[in-house]
Amino acid sequence: MGHDVLSEKPQLNLFESKNAPGRKPLKRPAPREKVPSSRRKKGGGPLTAEQMGAQQREISVAEFFTKNRHLLGFDNATKALLTTVKEAVDNSLDAAEEAGLLPEITVEISPLKGLAGARSGTNGAGSGKNGDPNAPERFVVAVTDNGPGVIKAQIPKIFGKLLYGSKFHRLRQSRGQQGIGISAAGMYGQLTTGIPTAIISRTGKGRPAHRFEVLVNTQKNHPETVTDEEVEWELDHGTRVEIALEARYQRGKHSVDEYLRQCAVANPHARFVYRAPDGEETIFERGIEDLPASPKEIKPHPYGVELGVLMKMLKTTKATKLKAFLSTDFSRVSLAVASEICDVAGLSQNAWVSRIAREDADRLYQAIPRVKIRKPPTNCLAPIGDEAIKAGLVKEFEPDFVHAVTRAPSVYRGNPFTIEVGVAFGGKLPGDQSVKVIRFANRVPLLYQQSACAIQKALGSVPWRNYGVQHPKGGLPVGPLVVFVHFASVWVQFTSESKEAIAHYPEILKELRLCMQDCGRVVGRHIRRQKRIADAEKKRSYIEKYLPHIGIALQEILDLTDAEREEAFLRLIGILNRSRKF
Amino acid sequence: MGHDVLSEKPQLNLFESKNAPGRKPLKRPAPREKVPSSRRKKGGGPLTAEQMGAQQREISVAEFFTKNRHLLGFDNATKALLTTVKEAVDNSLDAAEEAGLLPEITVEISPLKGLAGARSGTNGAGSGKNGDPNAPERFVVAVTDNGPGVIKAQIPKIFGKLLYGSKFHRLRQSRGQQGIGISAAGMYGQLTTGIPTAIISRTGKGRPAHRFEVLVNTQKNHPETVTDEEVEWELDHGTRVEIALEARYQRGKHSVDEYLRQCAVANPHARFVYRAPDGEETIFERGIEDLPASPKEIKPHPYGVELGVLMKMLKTTKATKLKAFLSTDFSRVSLAVASEICDVAGLSQNAWVSRIAREDADRLYQAIPRVKIRKPPTNCLAPIGDEAIKAGLVKEFEPDFVHAVTRAPSVYRGNPFTIEVGVAFGGKLPGDQSVKVIRFANRVPLLYQQSACAIQKALGSVPWRNYGVQHPKGGLPVGPLVVFVHFASVWVQFTSESKEAIAHYPEILKELRLCMQDCGRVVGRHIRRQKRIADAEKKRSYIEKYLPHIGIALQEILDLTDAEREEAFLRLIGILNRSRKF
Repeated sequence: MGHDVLSEKPQLNLFESKNAPGRKPLKRPAPREKVPSSRRKKGGGPLTAEQMGAQQREISVAEFFTKNRHLLGFDNATKALLTTVKEAVDNSLDAAEEAGLLPEITVEISPLKGLAGARSGTNGAGSGKNGDPNAPERFVVAVTDNGPGVIKAQIPKIFGKLLYGSKFHRLRQSRGQQGIGISAAGMYGQLTTGIPTAIISRTGKGRPAHRFEVLVNTQKNHPETVTDEEVEWELDHGTRVEIALEARYQRGKHSVDEYLRQCAVANPHARFVYRAPDGEETIFERGIEDLPASPKEIKPHPYGVELGVLMKMLKTTKATKLKAFLSTDFSRVSLAVASEICDVAGLSQNAWVSRIAREDADRLYQAIPRVKIRKPPTNCLAPIGDEAIKAGLVKEFEPDFVHAVTRAPSVYRGNPFTIEVGVAFGGKLPGDQSVKVIRFANRVPLLYQQSACAIQKALGSVPWRNYGVQHPKGGLPVGPLVVFVHFASVWVQFTSESKEAIAHYPEILKELRLCMQDCGRVVGRHIRRQKRIADAEKKRSYIEKYLPHIGIALQEILDLTDAEREEAFLRLIGILNRSRKF
Repeated sequence: MGHDVLSEKPQLNLFESKNAPGRKPLKRPAPREKVPSSRRKKGGGPLTAEQMGAQQREISVAEFFTKNRHLLGFDNATKALLTTVKEAVDNSLDAAEEAGLLPEITVEISPLKGLAGARSGTNGAGSGKNGDPNAPERFVVAVTDNGPGVIKAQIPKIFGKLLYGSKFHRLRQSRGQQGIGISAAGMYGQLTTGIPTAIISRTGKGRPAHRFEVLVNTQKNHPETVTDEEVEWELDHGTRVEIALEARYQRGKHSVDEYLRQCAVANPHARFVYRAPDGEETIFERGIEDLPASPKEIKPHPYGVELGVLMKMLKTTKATKLKAFLSTDFSRVSLAVASEICDVAGLSQNAWVSRIAREDADRLYQAIPRVKIRKPPTNCLAPIGDEAIKAGLVKEFEPDFVHAVTRAPSVYRGNPFTIEVGVAFGGKLPGDQSVKVIRFANRVPLLYQQSACAIQKALGSVPWRNYGVQHPKGGLPVGPLVVFVHFASVWVQFTSESKEAIAHYPEILKELRLCMQDCGRVVGRHIRRQKRIADAEKKRSYIEKYLPHIGIALQEILDLTDAEREEAFLRLIGILNRSRKF
């Protein structure tokens, strides 16, 4: 029993707002954190539609994420520190690479002096900060890079406004993609210390360096500039960001130290200097002197666009006729392919784009999958490369054996992606623990939520036992094994905005598994060879150890001369060496 | 080695933007889906700071969630249908309750006619829709309620703009909290079918009913009204929402049917009529004729506010002096408590609120946890109540035994919350499968991501074996058992915006566990009693079955008369009945 309950639709180009005559719009109440007086008078009783209407308000995205900060990676004090460093370093790497510069990045974390530090125990009274080792403290995170700098006009919005950036609308692999990260970090700092984000930037040698202090106005999601002045600065070009926040510093897993080490492995063309809160300085020198090939921006692929997106593209395109629109605004659509799409859709190639209504757009949408179109270009991706992966693993872990595979790119919903896996085995790696998994997405280390990540799910489904590695059922393999996985895409589907784990789409799980199996097979051959060598060694040493005694015994039993004993001894060795059963 | 790298801060009330002299701001490029010409000319080479600046753009929250729709519950076609129904029904229930009306809600799902239906296989050519049973189809979801209606002026924004709503800024339990749901559903419908959301609403008998068709302009995140007209309508007051979307309809787990059934259990005061796509109609009648007590809005509690929020409250408060601010804008802060906070902070009670700079605000912030303040009021919560929970479980599952517990409210980060658990055991429940878990947050059923949810985590950590229920290590209990859990709060921390699973905060896990144990103990007593009864029954039937034969045998062996045999028989029975070892 179906019915089209919605009446006939007008053309797409009649989308004007109609002002409703008669009724005066209600004034929105002033933003307050108190119970509005209209409700108080009524004693909190039932509301009318007018009263409910008066309560409707816009929520700024900054307010939204303040209340939902666990969605952005600020759910606890340790993670907040890491997320802040991560966002700043991501931006620095992206900027330097886009400007064609070898990145040089300094990360400094220092305790914040001047105030008594953070308070502890927001749920209880009188618990006093001193003596509680788990109480968060306050730090200043300062990240400096040698990138191209940020022009003055853009600084407030980039650092003081959420959902503002350059990468969201492009189809090109980059670390940042949402336009949220650094402003969210600044907002979190502001929330916990009240101190604005400080930025120094210079875009070239002859130009002045500018210093800004910026706050996020959370009610309106726009920046408030507290300070804007010219300063002296030692770098010719680059950016320095300082955020003061409540955080907890610890070493080991999930630490800034671990993150920077992995960053250095994935970005051998970058140099990192790291100053920890206790003053200790660590330098990660460059491994190579070449920038990786720069990924190119691509146009959307027709297989990936939904009807609504297609309709929007029809509205905003520069092209006037349908065939030109298809061949210009999409990747892999030649004039011939564009013709074919029009034919299959039953539309004229010369149809005016502005006159294409919903039903025609839908015909187009239905026609596209019936036309054969080449896969999208993959020069929009920048894999790390198997040589670089192997070099990084060798340097970090000193294994016996290492192998890496970069798989040919695939496509998901019109978005190209590629997977690289590196495996290190043996050597200095401890043999009795679960595999160490190192995850990267678009060259950014993923340190949290490993069990929610598609990478772990794929890893557990690979038959590692076939490769000679212990693998308990339902768990992860055990042994002196490190598996490095890099997922690179123009748009990574994460499980939340904090970008900590990759979502479990079947196409992606399949590719992950296949890539891991490619690597696993090669490692398996190595492991089997090692086993054979070890067995042969065991045999040889057995012979060395016991045979002389057998020889002497034989001599007595058979009454052999010394020479006969030697000869028998050598023949025995020969037979044993050749024997397979031994 | 710490240093305060940020210079002295000006007063809070000097937050003016300073216009930068000299440099002209760069014009943002027109929104296009193409590679900008500036990049094309350079052949995609390295960019300057100016060029990168030119690429910076605002990203509307609607665009953001279009790309990240899995964050809102639209990751696949089945879920999209459920999420759409859920959002509309949540709004209807909230609105009716706020207006003091017993909710009456009709949900209709019908196939969308008029077009050839959705296409299949966006990743391949020539795979044609017909014959692919897994291809999504198109449906119209229509939800009608008898609520107070929505005033005309608010309709476009409520349905055509993300992050617009009435509940985000209030501290009061409600189903909706983010101001995203229904606009996101409409946006998803628009994305997959191009059809606008249709709304009919009337706010009272004498007033006209209005019909709107609204689209979300994703680039600006504001509504576009396609249609706005007065119509005839049969209801005196209420709202009807119609969304056409690509979806998949299925019965069983994760289905709309299951969702509405659970909704009916949790909201016995509401009446639901459900029309499935095949025309089948199901009615869930009211269980009770009273509305639940309406939760009251409360003011924020001092223990829960962060420094940044406190600073913002100081800026926007109506109060002029510090003590008045504290005692008016917070809950549980009497004049005496306000005095004490000022004293501990070392600030004057009569300090002008507008002159409180960051350092003083920080002293306030540090002082608050050192002052004893009563827990927040809990009349902002609306638990379902143990009687209603038991009634619902009995009606649904026909168990032998049922018990429910509503725990006294707790507080997390200043937000009151309460947990209710109901357990049903035995009867018609199948005995050989894992426990069935029914989860609710703020009276809304949670149907997805059970393994990511704090509720499941807590459930697995309860020692069910102590209560006589099988419980394999590391897994969930097994048996004829249903566990119903309701988490009610003024702000539920979910793991993502799709509101499918509750985040694992320790305080919440602890309360969940304690509540489940309260219930589990009572069920355990029942199970043990049942076991004793069963054992006694076994014993009795054994006696009935075998003893006569023993009696006859004894008679022969001992040469007893019939009377003697009877007497011995009865004494034997007496002894056996009293014996514990038997």
